[in-house]
Amino acid sequence: MPDADVIRTTIADYLARFTAGDREGWLDLWAEDATLEDPVGGEVHQGIEAIRAFWDMTREMTPEIELALTGPVRVAGQEAAFPGEARPVLGDARMAVPVVDTLAFDEDGKITRLRAFWDFADLRPLD
Amino acid sequence: MPDADVIRTTIADYLARFTAGDREGWLDLWAEDATLEDPVGGEVHQGIEAIRAFWDMTREMTPEIELALTGPVRVAGQEAAFPGEARPVLGDARMAVPVVDTLAFDEDGKITRLRAFWDFADLRPLD
Repeated sequence: MPDADVIRTTIADYLARFTAGDREGWLDLWAEDATLEDPVGGEVHQGIEAIRAFWDMTREMTPEIELALTGPVRVAGQEAAFPGEARPVLGDARMAVPVVDTLAFDEDGKITRLRAFWDFADLRPLD
Repeated sequence: MPDADVIRTTIADYLARFTAGDREGWLDLWAEDATLEDPVGGEVHQGIEAIRAFWDMTREMTPEIELALTGPVRVAGQEAAFPGEARPVLGDARMAVPVVDTLAFDEDGKITRLRAFWDFADLRPLD
């Protein structure tokens, strides 16, 4: 079981690489057969190729997007959750939407499942 | 599908009844066959009787406990997540631990699954 520090480091890397637009560094954090559900209730993308395709699709719409923590990471066993804010640039405007991401990890500390709780209805201009 | 306002109201009631120690009011918010995993990685309590027993067991240890939101509720489809802080009184001390709860709902807006992300290691005296 990966220890809490490994999970916290992986999440810090996840946020930094996501925000930097470092697709391959971000993909390195995932297990080969991982699943991504973003937003929760939408399509579940299974496997690293589907996750890469999801990255490409979303970056076409929003090439610039920041994902920031808004509170501490909660580690629980081999899983974790954190509250954050996604801040995409849409047109000329920096927008923001609150998110909660939950993640599960394998023995090697790779992400096996990520679910992102958020709703377009909560998108607003960033203060 | 319950709409977002119904889910938000249920979560507000959940927090208020939990903090007030209103066991039966709190249990009214759950579906009969619901599951509760608190903390994530621990035992999954299935069904309303198991959830009542879990309440009784935890309240024996901590009769007084507050659960407070620390950020907005994120609704996503028929699920939701929120960041919060659990504040149990242990001995003479008010303690605090950060939590993220994720919840799923049925067509009637009853809770079908709750998972609570937190770790005893993060418990500290409340500021």
